[in-house]
Amino acid sequence: MRDVAIIGVGAHPTGQFTHMAMKDMAHVAIWGALEDAGVNPRDLNVAYVGNSLGGLLTGQEGIRGQVVMQHSGITGIPVINVENACASAATALRGAWLEVASGAADVAIAVGVEKMYVGDTARTIGALSAVSELDLSQMGMQFTTSYAIHPKINLREKMRTYGWTMADFAKPAVKNSYNGSLNPLAQHRRPLTIEEVVQSRVVVDPLTLYMCASISDGAAAAVLCAGNIAARFTSKKPIRIAACVLRSGQYRLPDDERPDSATTTAEQAYEAAGVGPHDIEAIELHDAMAPAELMLYERLGLCGPGEGPKLIDDGITTLRGRQPVNPSGGLCSRGHPVGATGLLQVAELVWQMRGEAGARQMEKPPKLTMAQNQGGLLLGQDSAVYATTILSC
Amino acid sequence: MRDVAIIGVGAHPTGQFTHMAMKDMAHVAIWGALEDAGVNPRDLNVAYVGNSLGGLLTGQEGIRGQVVMQHSGITGIPVINVENACASAATALRGAWLEVASGAADVAIAVGVEKMYVGDTARTIGALSAVSELDLSQMGMQFTTSYAIHPKINLREKMRTYGWTMADFAKPAVKNSYNGSLNPLAQHRRPLTIEEVVQSRVVVDPLTLYMCASISDGAAAAVLCAGNIAARFTSKKPIRIAACVLRSGQYRLPDDERPDSATTTAEQAYEAAGVGPHDIEAIELHDAMAPAELMLYERLGLCGPGEGPKLIDDGITTLRGRQPVNPSGGLCSRGHPVGATGLLQVAELVWQMRGEAGARQMEKPPKLTMAQNQGGLLLGQDSAVYATTILSC
Repeated sequence: MRDVAIIGVGAHPTGQFTHMAMKDMAHVAIWGALEDAGVNPRDLNVAYVGNSLGGLLTGQEGIRGQVVMQHSGITGIPVINVENACASAATALRGAWLEVASGAADVAIAVGVEKMYVGDTARTIGALSAVSELDLSQMGMQFTTSYAIHPKINLREKMRTYGWTMADFAKPAVKNSYNGSLNPLAQHRRPLTIEEVVQSRVVVDPLTLYMCASISDGAAAAVLCAGNIAARFTSKKPIRIAACVLRSGQYRLPDDERPDSATTTAEQAYEAAGVGPHDIEAIELHDAMAPAELMLYERLGLCGPGEGPKLIDDGITTLRGRQPVNPSGGLCSRGHPVGATGLLQVAELVWQMRGEAGARQMEKPPKLTMAQNQGGLLLGQDSAVYATTILSC
Repeated sequence: MRDVAIIGVGAHPTGQFTHMAMKDMAHVAIWGALEDAGVNPRDLNVAYVGNSLGGLLTGQEGIRGQVVMQHSGITGIPVINVENACASAATALRGAWLEVASGAADVAIAVGVEKMYVGDTARTIGALSAVSELDLSQMGMQFTTSYAIHPKINLREKMRTYGWTMADFAKPAVKNSYNGSLNPLAQHRRPLTIEEVVQSRVVVDPLTLYMCASISDGAAAAVLCAGNIAARFTSKKPIRIAACVLRSGQYRLPDDERPDSATTTAEQAYEAAGVGPHDIEAIELHDAMAPAELMLYERLGLCGPGEGPKLIDDGITTLRGRQPVNPSGGLCSRGHPVGATGLLQVAELVWQMRGEAGARQMEKPPKLTMAQNQGGLLLGQDSAVYATTILSC
C-alpha cells in the first residue's frame, strides 16, 4: 500500500441552514477542499460521498453523490455513495484512502454531507431512528434512549459502579462548549457551565439537553493524494494518513466481557500506525452525548476504568492540556450533521496540525492526531459502525 | 494489484416476495455464495452491501448492510453500504474487488439486495423516481420517460434515423423471454412473441409493457478472494475478475458527439482485460427497457450504428449464437431488483462459465464474459452510473 496524504480540507459551517440544499452545502466543502489542496477537478480520479439520511429527509434516495458532484461541476469519474449512519463520512474517507493507497487512484476526494433541518423535527427524529435496525426504531428506540437502557453504556449503572455524578456527565459538554465558542464553524458557540448543563431539561434520564448533540446541517470534504505527488499540488504540509480502520460492531451477549469494537478498532489503528494511545497529541471523538466522551477515554486507552472525569479535572483533555479532546467543540458544540461528522473531525485535525485553527489553535501544532467516529444501533451491538483514523506529519 | 477470483455466488429468486424482508432474501444469497465458495463467515474480512431504495421503501434508511449481515450471522467486520441506483450491486462488487486486489482483504463478500414490492406500486415508482435528480423526479421524470424525451436515446428518433421498427424494439424482449423461460430464478418465465410484445399496452410511447423491466424483489451475492488462495476454499474453477470499471456519467450538451460513458467505461474495461468486444463469449447487459439492448450493442462495440436488430435476426446474440446476450433472461425477464441486478448478472456469468446454468447453459461454457450495469438519471447525462466487469477463466 502506498503512503496517502490529505492535502486539502473544506467545510461548510454547521447549524441550521433551512434555505440550503445538500448540494449547496457540499459545494462549499468540495471547493474549499479543492482550493485548499491546489487541485483542479480534472485531477480527481474518484469521489466517495457519505450521507445517511438524505433518502427519508430530502427525498433524494439515490445517486446523492452524483447530484452533489455534478452541482460542483464534477462528472465523468467514479462516484461511490457510502452510508454508515453517523460514521458515513469516515467511511467515505476510508474509501478514498483505499483508492489512493492501492494505486487505483492518484487523487481522490471524500465528501460528507447531511441536511437534517427540514422544517419538521419529528420527521428528522424518525429518520434518525431509521439508522437503528427497523425493529428497534419501531419500538421508538433512538440513540439517546440507548444511554438509559443499553447494558454496556447505561449511565445510571456508571453512576453506581464508578461513582460518576451528573456534574461528571456535564464536564465534557462544558469543556467542548468552550472549544466550540472559539470555532467560527460551530453550531453552538456559547460556553456552558456545569450548572447550566445539569439543569437543562431532561431528554432521557439522566441525559439533559446540553449533554446531547442537536439536529444539524453541514458538510465537509478532504482531498487525498499519493504521498509522493503531494508537492505537485500544494506547498502546504501534507498530512499523512497513518491508519484508517473501519469495522462494524460485534454481536455480543450482555455478559460478554471482551473489549468492545471501539477498543478493538482503535487498537488496530494504533498498531497500523505504530503508536500508542498516549502518543496521540489531539483527538476528535464521537461525543454524540457528552458522557460518551468519558466512556470513550477508557475505550481508546487514554485512561483506566472510571477515570474519565479526572482527565478533564486535571486539564489533560482541555484545549491547553497535554492531550486535547474535541478541540473543534465536538459533536455537541461544533455540531453533528451525521453524514458529515467524520470529515469535520478530520478537517479540524488538519487545521490544528497546520497551525491554522485560529482562536482554538493548540499552542504547539500537534504532529500525531486521531479521529474516532461511530454510528448506528443494532440489537446486541454497542454501535453498528466504528472508524478510527490516525494522522501524522 | 493482486489477481482476484470469484469463488462463490448465490442468489434469491427474482419476483414478488411480499412476505420477505430484505434481510431474509439477502440471507439466501449470502449463504448460497458462502456455501458455493466453501468459505466460513469467519474467513470474511469485509462486506460491501449494495441497495438503492431501502430508505424510502422499507424505512430502513441507515446501516442496511449491517442489518442484513447480522441477520446472516456475520458481525465484527467492516461493512460498507454502497448506493449507485441500478448499479448498486456492481458498485458493491467493485468495492469488494478493490479490497482484495489491494491486499486490504484476503476474502470479501459483495451483496446486492432490493425489496420493491411493498404493497403500494405508486410508492415504489415514487422511490424509483428518486434515483433521478430530485429536480427531474419532481417533474415526474422516471426511467421509462427518458426513452421518449432524452436526446441521445430517443426511440422515435432511432426509428427515423435507423429505420428501426416496433418489431425491432421487441426483438430483445422476445429473445430474452426465451432465455428467462429456462431460468428457475427468473421473474417472468413465459416466452413471448413479437406480436405479444408490440401489442402489449403502451407505457411511454413507443415503449410497451413487455419491453420494460418490472418491479421486482431479489438478492445476489459473490464471494471474492485473492487468486492465489482460491484453492484453499473450493475445488471449483475460480473465475478471475479481469476488469472491474466504474464511472459516473459525463455531463454533455445534446450536440456533444463524443462517445457516451457506456462506451468509455467498456473501452476502459477492454483495455484493462487486454481484450476486444468480439472476444467476449457471453454478455449480461442492462436492458431495463428492451430497446436499450439494441443501443448497448453499439455502445459496447458489438456492432456498428443501427445494426442492433440484425445481431438478433442473425442469431448472434441468442442463447445458441456466437455471442449470447442476457442468457439469464436479462432485466425484463430474469428481473431487475435494482440494487441486486449487477450481482445477478455476475452470478449468471459464473454459472455459465462453470457449466452450471442448467437448461439455459451455453453449449460450450464461455471462458471470457462481461457484465454491464448502469443506473440513475441526471440532467445532461445518459445515465448517472456505468459499470463494466470482465470475467475470465
